[in-house]
Amino acid sequence: MDFGYDEKTEELRGRVRAFLDDEVTPAEPVFDEQLAAQPDPWAWSTVPVLEELKDKAKSQGLWNLFLPGDKGAGLTNLQYAPLAEILGRSTLASATMNCAAPDTGNMEVLNEFGTPEQQEQWLKPLLAGEIRSSFAMTEPDVASSDATNIGTRIERDGDEYVINGRKWWITGAMDPNAKIFIVMGKTDPSAERHRQQSQILVPRDTPGLTIKRGMTVYGYDDADHGGHAELEFTDVRVPASNLIGDEGSGFAIAQARLGPGRIHHCMRSIGLAEKAIELMCERADGRTAFGRPLSEQGVIRNWIAESRVKLEQLRLLVLKTAWLMDTVGNKGAHTEIQAIKIATPETVQWILDKAIQTHGAGGLSQDFPLARAYAGIRTLRFADGPDEVHKASLARRELRRQAAEREGRAN
Amino acid sequence: MDFGYDEKTEELRGRVRAFLDDEVTPAEPVFDEQLAAQPDPWAWSTVPVLEELKDKAKSQGLWNLFLPGDKGAGLTNLQYAPLAEILGRSTLASATMNCAAPDTGNMEVLNEFGTPEQQEQWLKPLLAGEIRSSFAMTEPDVASSDATNIGTRIERDGDEYVINGRKWWITGAMDPNAKIFIVMGKTDPSAERHRQQSQILVPRDTPGLTIKRGMTVYGYDDADHGGHAELEFTDVRVPASNLIGDEGSGFAIAQARLGPGRIHHCMRSIGLAEKAIELMCERADGRTAFGRPLSEQGVIRNWIAESRVKLEQLRLLVLKTAWLMDTVGNKGAHTEIQAIKIATPETVQWILDKAIQTHGAGGLSQDFPLARAYAGIRTLRFADGPDEVHKASLARRELRRQAAEREGRAN
Amino acid sequence: MDFGYDEKTEELRGRVRAFLDDEVTPAEPVFDEQLAAQPDPWAWSTVPVLEELKDKAKSQGLWNLFLPGDKGAGLTNLQYAPLAEILGRSTLASATMNCAAPDTGNMEVLNEFGTPEQQEQWLKPLLAGEIRSSFAMTEPDVASSDATNIGTRIERDGDEYVINGRKWWITGAMDPNAKIFIVMGKTDPSAERHRQQSQILVPRDTPGLTIKRGMTVYGYDDADHGGHAELEFTDVRVPASNLIGDEGSGFAIAQARLGPGRIHHCMRSIGLAEKAIELMCERADGRTAFGRPLSEQGVIRNWIAESRVKLEQLRLLVLKTAWLMDTVGNKGAHTEIQAIKIATPETVQWILDKAIQTHGAGGLSQDFPLARAYAGIRTLRFADGPDEVHKASLARRELRRQAAEREGRAN
Amino acid sequence: MDFGYDEKTEELRGRVRAFLDDEVTPAEPVFDEQLAAQPDPWAWSTVPVLEELKDKAKSQGLWNLFLPGDKGAGLTNLQYAPLAEILGRSTLASATMNCAAPDTGNMEVLNEFGTPEQQEQWLKPLLAGEIRSSFAMTEPDVASSDATNIGTRIERDGDEYVINGRKWWITGAMDPNAKIFIVMGKTDPSAERHRQQSQILVPRDTPGLTIKRGMTVYGYDDADHGGHAELEFTDVRVPASNLIGDEGSGFAIAQARLGPGRIHHCMRSIGLAEKAIELMCERADGRTAFGRPLSEQGVIRNWIAESRVKLEQLRLLVLKTAWLMDTVGNKGAHTEIQAIKIATPETVQWILDKAIQTHGAGGLSQDFPLARAYAGIRTLRFADGPDEVHKASLARRELRRQAAEREGRAN
Repeated sequence: MDFGYDEKTEELRGRVRAFLDDEVTPAEPVFDEQLAAQPDPWAWSTVPVLEELKDKAKSQGLWNLFLPGDKGAGLTNLQYAPLAEILGRSTLASATMNCAAPDTGNMEVLNEFGTPEQQEQWLKPLLAGEIRSSFAMTEPDVASSDATNIGTRIERDGDEYVINGRKWWITGAMDPNAKIFIVMGKTDPSAERHRQQSQILVPRDTPGLTIKRGMTVYGYDDADHGGHAELEFTDVRVPASNLIGDEGSGFAIAQARLGPGRIHHCMRSIGLAEKAIELMCERADGRTAFGRPLSEQGVIRNWIAESRVKLEQLRLLVLKTAWLMDTVGNKGAHTEIQAIKIATPETVQWILDKAIQTHGAGGLSQDFPLARAYAGIRTLRFADGPDEVHKASLARRELRRQAAEREGRAN
Repeated sequence: MDFGYDEKTEELRGRVRAFLDDEVTPAEPVFDEQLAAQPDPWAWSTVPVLEELKDKAKSQGLWNLFLPGDKGAGLTNLQYAPLAEILGRSTLASATMNCAAPDTGNMEVLNEFGTPEQQEQWLKPLLAGEIRSSFAMTEPDVASSDATNIGTRIERDGDEYVINGRKWWITGAMDPNAKIFIVMGKTDPSAERHRQQSQILVPRDTPGLTIKRGMTVYGYDDADHGGHAELEFTDVRVPASNLIGDEGSGFAIAQARLGPGRIHHCMRSIGLAEKAIELMCERADGRTAFGRPLSEQGVIRNWIAESRVKLEQLRLLVLKTAWLMDTVGNKGAHTEIQAIKIATPETVQWILDKAIQTHGAGGLSQDFPLARAYAGIRTLRFADGPDEVHKASLARRELRRQAAEREGRAN
Repeated sequence: MDFGYDEKTEELRGRVRAFLDDEVTPAEPVFDEQLAAQPDPWAWSTVPVLEELKDKAKSQGLWNLFLPGDKGAGLTNLQYAPLAEILGRSTLASATMNCAAPDTGNMEVLNEFGTPEQQEQWLKPLLAGEIRSSFAMTEPDVASSDATNIGTRIERDGDEYVINGRKWWITGAMDPNAKIFIVMGKTDPSAERHRQQSQILVPRDTPGLTIKRGMTVYGYDDADHGGHAELEFTDVRVPASNLIGDEGSGFAIAQARLGPGRIHHCMRSIGLAEKAIELMCERADGRTAFGRPLSEQGVIRNWIAESRVKLEQLRLLVLKTAWLMDTVGNKGAHTEIQAIKIATPETVQWILDKAIQTHGAGGLSQDFPLARAYAGIRTLRFADGPDEVHKASLARRELRRQAAEREGRAN
Repeated sequence: MDFGYDEKTEELRGRVRAFLDDEVTPAEPVFDEQLAAQPDPWAWSTVPVLEELKDKAKSQGLWNLFLPGDKGAGLTNLQYAPLAEILGRSTLASATMNCAAPDTGNMEVLNEFGTPEQQEQWLKPLLAGEIRSSFAMTEPDVASSDATNIGTRIERDGDEYVINGRKWWITGAMDPNAKIFIVMGKTDPSAERHRQQSQILVPRDTPGLTIKRGMTVYGYDDADHGGHAELEFTDVRVPASNLIGDEGSGFAIAQARLGPGRIHHCMRSIGLAEKAIELMCERADGRTAFGRPLSEQGVIRNWIAESRVKLEQLRLLVLKTAWLMDTVGNKGAHTEIQAIKIATPETVQWILDKAIQTHGAGGLSQDFPLARAYAGIRTLRFADGPDEVHKASLARRELRRQAAEREGRAN
């Protein structure tokens, strides 16, 4: 149980933080202006200043840090986690270093399960940061927490697969540069529960695929990250070679991407929470009410202390999970992966709410990053299923474990 | 302590509810389309379908229901409160019956404190629903919870007053039809704490008044209600006759508007919460996960029960406050007015969050009214000062009362 | 919806409060001493000073205030509720005026359902305060929230009934002066769900009835109220005439006693919470930490304010429930009776915890009444079933009501 | 940041757990009986079965495990912490291995600061488990969270010190075998804030020292651990050589004992919480309500999951604190020591409350260890000062740190 940051990690932390402070933060308002000046409000990923930042990051070797193996930076989960925390401080940072979701998960999948042809055609430009991608799993009509509910069909027809179905909350898909979608659907509804699903590559311009609209989160369209699209697939035909892995492997592939994705999300959220504590402290020191700075008032102090105490505990749990994944793999870290999914949004949302309250009404507005951060974190309480489903599942395993131990003690 | 709805109230409840269901609800999508089709996105109050609804409401006598006395419907607070609850179910309803904030408070102020000339020029068109208005009190640089902090200056210069200062969160002011602003500022910073402030009428087109931008709330610009503007007053000159009441009466006038305003806000919020419970129940019955409808799952049932139990208690407190205001006046209802300001946003926010969670990710989107409602309610936790200030103040009075009773018992 | 305290109520409130302050409070330490000096620690109800207080109360007409009709004080629920609130301030007060549970419920049952003989034998001495009684319903082996689970058997054998079973948490039963027990059991397990149960009178000294032990609540044995006994019934025989009502009426009789009992419990709990707020304020004013009285510290002020805001809401809900019971009866007040059962323990427990925290470690000790009060209130979260069961049940009714309204709107 | 359990720790964990399961648990009812049969209910530490267990533990080398250095087991904080967790599962276990508070802290103090004579006279029999001891710091009249408030005087008079003052919540002091008290008082009230206090040894039988009474926690007197005494010191005279360290070193010595003491407390509390989760799962599997085991009901599952998620985070934080203390010392671990003081009672109390609720009313009684555990944990929220004081202090340091970082970034 050694979560220490090794030398390589510390060195990278210094460089990533410097890049964030020196390059990304000053570029943020420029990005916003350039995006606003574009004809297509969704075409965020090709905004000039972002391209420049990507070049800089690439030249500094701060590129594809998330990707294990020799195609990426080759970091372990425990090495990358603290970098993700730093990236979480800014909404732009991840993209500058080609470490933004959902491309990260898509690249991992293609790297691990893609054919050489698939890798040549799609992984290569993704790794180069030339195009972007989406992952189309969630559907409007079923509980997304249960993969067996998926309604989208992927049917073999000669040398092709024909796809029909409806998806929503497909992050990034409003961006015209999101050239390729990984689509989850059912190839065999009569197979065993976890062998019904497959994943298949669908290029953006395939006939029959309609990008219907962007979903909003509270009032944010998240255009600066490609939004969250509703998609319709009507007799969409792709070559059979677009299938990722075998027919029926869709669920297993989805599981494989889950672990690292959660570590990334959680550490970025922790970075956001750290930023929020900073803002809360700065505001509390700088604002006076009823004759004393907010920072000398008991209620505010309680919030700051509780924020720190909660966040320290959460970070340790996420680091432990990263370490477990590195040492015993996804399966051995199952409970912890679920635990961080439960704990992170709740904790970070709480901290953000207190940071907002410390800022007065301004905290809800565009003048501070807090309200938008809150909106983003709030969605995590639904990602891969609502909190309640994850809790029920974790409890089921705890009950099973306890029953086995009782039996063990009884014998 | 009789909060019963009398015959007149029941009769009006029926008619307001019918108008809501039969006229307003079907018109909502039309309103959204017409507003979107307009060149000025902020000019919500002159959208054709709204004008039609106003005519209908007026012809049915459902007009200015909020206003006591013979210029309005002449209802007591306790009679109007249940109507406000119904209006709270829809974002459009209040405006159709000329019962929308901040005009309601502005009309009350002009009705009670305005000169005949002021009433002729501004109250008359407001009562007729021809123009709209804003109340400019909150400032970006000071804690709005403490009226003595106000930085805006209103200085006498011959027959005029000269206004300088900055305001923000001025609800409705982005609407070009908001023709008149009631502005709070200091006429005499050296006077006794609560005699420093005055309120003055500033027409929208007065030179020196700049409408700078609209503030957003969780990404919503609230353009369909005139937004929340930041204003700058630079040597803005108005005739001395624009002053409302005497110099130094600004604080007292603000207090007078406070009581009814809070009743309205709280009852509308309760209406919103009722709507949220309805949606939560409907969703819970209609959605199945893991083999059973959500409505048969324990966690969801707990949320529904707690929502009902909380809301029943809250409504009784607000009705009691309305009744107190009718029977012993603003002063005698001081503690209760503060109590409902503390209790309402917290309770309604809690219910909305559970309703959102029951809806899955859709609950955060434009497909349901819940996320926007949450954003609106969240701002109430800052209105007239953050929760913490109101709690501290209520506690101070409780401590004082308890100390007096201890002394009484000791003697 | 008129919850006002009428003239009679106000007059009684004054007299009950005066009796409490002038007679009961000074007698409390005397009672504790006399009880400690007795050979039987459980024989609380015959302690001399209590007998004196009972005589005084009787002579002042403060006797059997809880009982409607001409055998009691003839008050409505709404008239008695505010008196119960005052009684709740002291652990001794209710008994001095013959208004203590579980005798109150037992007297109500005998008054309403008892035969003339049963009334002569048991109701008369109970009304006179000469003996005490218990109600034996809860069982150790089944969820007490579901009356159909009851395991105790009441079997007819000639002119007798034979009772077998185990009960626990039988409040008051350790007191040797608790001469009569009303026992709930099943006469016909094959009958329709709510016609299986009957209630029967079992005198304390009946052979086969064993008083096994007193249960403790957080270490308190509650000996000063007769404790909470575990009972064993082994072939206990009583005359058939001891049955209350008909065979199969046990569930209905239990339901009938429920409503008033909950009002009493809830109002007494509110009185306790008022006392706790008083103590919290007194402590906060009197204790200094880090240079300022606790009462000037923000966290404490928040607690005081939240306590007041919560308690006001709760009281209104309980009063409304009392008024509903008076006007539309038990059935019409069903939802509210359940709502106060859910809301009261949670709110009062919260207030007590904050009052304890304000007192420092002393708050947990015998030096203040707070910890014991907390223990008592905590048990209410299990009374007649745990919170969760009541919430599920209230939600079921809410869902049903909402579904009916949806259907109504659709037609 | 390596919190792994090393080989030695794992080996000891196995043996301590086995001793607990095989020896201590079966002896618990025997201990209760033997204690009940004794004439002095407070003389717990000399109950025969406990003496036997101590002999066994000693012979197995499971003795003084808490004590670093060559007089004890020589374990680091990180090595001892997991053992303390196991000890926390039983109220008797710590004492059997001579690892019970407050002796542990007293032995540490004597080991580190005692003179050879003091060690010979008091440390030796304490290490041998022959006598017991108390630490007298908390006072009834002042906020114990602020050491500068201490009212007890220790005045030099020739070769003696004269002690006057009042203490309460002196754990273990009701036990007649608690032969020696370490007393905190002021030798120089005019010195600099943290040099006013000294600690001095006072034998139990010293004239002028009165053991006045035992404080109760909720209704528990904790007689099975020597209770919590109120003490009065009236002109108590001891030789000057009884002073521990120099005059004025009392605060520093208290700080030194704090760190390890908190680790122990927190890990024992975590052990208790693990036990509670076990009981909760067992009950949930074994109890059926409304046709399904509790363990299949959503609310209960949520509680189990949240318990697990909270507890995992908490344990990591405590282990990190232990590791920090081992590597950078008390000072460097200051924030974490405070953080675990804040987090542990709150988390464990929450888990215990849910475990109680899962057990129904029985959970509050003597039939399960949960209510008593709750009472014990509740007191920790006051230990060394209430939660709020610790939070304010931690926040002050966070604010200072953040301000320094802001300044750093600005330069």
